[in-house]
Amino acid sequence: MCLFEPKNRVTFAGAGPGDPGLITLKALQALGKADAVLYDALVNPALLDLAPAAAIKTYVGKRYGCQAYSQEEINRLMVVYAQQYGHVVRLKGGDPFIFGRIAEEMEALAEAGIPYYIIPGISSALAVPATMGVPLTCRGTAESLWITTGTTRSGEISHDLYLAAQSTATIVILMAMSRLAAIMEIFVAAGRAEMPVAVIQHGTLPEERMVVATVETIAALAEKEGIANPAVIVVGETVRFPGRLRAIAGEVYTKQSSVI
Amino acid sequence: MCLFEPKNRVTFAGAGPGDPGLITLKALQALGKADAVLYDALVNPALLDLAPAAAIKTYVGKRYGCQAYSQEEINRLMVVYAQQYGHVVRLKGGDPFIFGRIAEEMEALAEAGIPYYIIPGISSALAVPATMGVPLTCRGTAESLWITTGTTRSGEISHDLYLAAQSTATIVILMAMSRLAAIMEIFVAAGRAEMPVAVIQHGTLPEERMVVATVETIAALAEKEGIANPAVIVVGETVRFPGRLRAIAGEVYTKQSSVI
Repeated sequence: MCLFEPKNRVTFAGAGPGDPGLITLKALQALGKADAVLYDALVNPALLDLAPAAAIKTYVGKRYGCQAYSQEEINRLMVVYAQQYGHVVRLKGGDPFIFGRIAEEMEALAEAGIPYYIIPGISSALAVPATMGVPLTCRGTAESLWITTGTTRSGEISHDLYLAAQSTATIVILMAMSRLAAIMEIFVAAGRAEMPVAVIQHGTLPEERMVVATVETIAALAEKEGIANPAVIVVGETVRFPGRLRAIAGEVYTKQSSVI
Repeated sequence: MCLFEPKNRVTFAGAGPGDPGLITLKALQALGKADAVLYDALVNPALLDLAPAAAIKTYVGKRYGCQAYSQEEINRLMVVYAQQYGHVVRLKGGDPFIFGRIAEEMEALAEAGIPYYIIPGISSALAVPATMGVPLTCRGTAESLWITTGTTRSGEISHDLYLAAQSTATIVILMAMSRLAAIMEIFVAAGRAEMPVAVIQHGTLPEERMVVATVETIAALAEKEGIANPAVIVVGETVRFPGRLRAIAGEVYTKQSSVI
C-alpha cells in the first residue's frame, strides 16, 4: 500500500465476465479493504463475500431496462459513500472501460475532488469466446477484432457495423439479442450470408450455452433455443475453429470448467 | 478440482498486461499446480515464482524478431512436456486469444490427443489505456472498439485500418511502433488529422510512459521521446478524456499504482 493512500477514495474494479475465478488479484485485494461496495447487475454475487462482512454492499444495477438507480444517483452515491465511509469499491461487470459508462463516473468524482484508482477486469467480449475455444484473431484469417453493442446512444443500429461487415475483423457484439436479426441483415447485405456466427449466453458460468449457425440462420436458431441476454454474439471465420478441432481429435476440451 | 482431471494436460493462461497483480485467481491457482511452465517474452518474470520451485520453467518467447523457439518447436515442446511431466501451463502475455497464435497451439494439442483448458487473461489492448484513464468507449462519441496489429500476415498494412479510420470506433493498435507513421497517414487520408492519439509504452508497469498528440504529430513526438514497442497506440476522441478531468479537478488520480 502507498503510504500516502487517501482514506476517502474510490476504486473502480472489473469483476470479470461471470466466473468468480476470473477476477484479478488486485481487485480481490481492493475488495478485501473496502468500506463500501457499489455493484452492478452482472457482477457475480459470490464476489461480495470477498469484501469485509462489515462493509456496506449496495446494488446499483440495471438489467433489462429496470434500473435500481439512475446514473446520476450512482454518481451521487459514490461521492457520499466515499466521504462518509472511506474506501468505496465500484465493482462493474466485465471490464469497466468497455461500455461501462465509467467516464461519467470518473467525471463526477473529479468534480467532487475524490481520488480514484482503476483496476481493469476481464471483458466478456474476450473471455466468453475464449473459454468456448473460439479464437478472436487468427493469422491470415481474422486480422483484427471489433467490439460493439451494435447500437448508438439513441438506440439505432450503429453505422460502424456496415464498415465492420466489410472487414476481416472478428466482430463481437454485446447485449444485442433484441437486434440480432436486424444486425445479421447488414452482414447479408455485405455478401456474408454464409459466415459462421456463435451466440453464447451466460458465458463462463455453469449455465453457459452456445449456439452456432450462419449469418442467415442464427436469429431463428437463437430464438428457437431461447437464447437471450446476457449474451455475446461472435461473427467471423474463427467461429469454425472448435469444430475443426473436433475433426482432428475425438475428444477435445474447449471448456475450462474443471481447472480449479 | 474436477475428480476426473487428467494428469497430462495443458492449461493456456493469460498473464495479463505486465503488472503481476492483474493475473486472475484461476491462472494463479493453475500456476500453483504446474509441473512445467512455458512462457513468452512479455510475461512478467515475477509470475514464475507462483509456480512450484520444482516445476520446469522454459522461456519460449519471441521479441523484436529474435525467436528462442519457432512456433513448431513450441508446439512440440508443449506436447512432450505434457507427456513427460504432467500439467503444463502455457503462460502467454495479455490474453492468449488476442494475437496470441493460440489456435495453432490448440491444433497441435488436439492432434496429439492432449486435453487442454483455457483461462483468459487481461489484454493490454484494454488494460493499458484503462489504467491511464483513457476510456475505450463513450456513449455518443465512441460507439465501438477496434483492436488490431495494423499489419497482415505478410507484413503489409491491413486494409481493415481504412475501414476503422471511417468509423466511430476507438482504435487500439498493438506492437505497431515501426509502422506508426504509415498507419497515421491512413487517418489523415480519412480526414482525421486532428484526432487525438496516445501511445503508451510498458503499460501497467512502473516504467510506463505515455505521449499524447494528434494523428498528424504523434509519430514525430513518439520518435523524439524514444517510445518503442512494447507499446499500445490508441486513436480516438476518448484520448482527450484524462485532460478533460484535469480541467475539472486540480488533482486527479488516473493511475492505479498505489491501490495495493
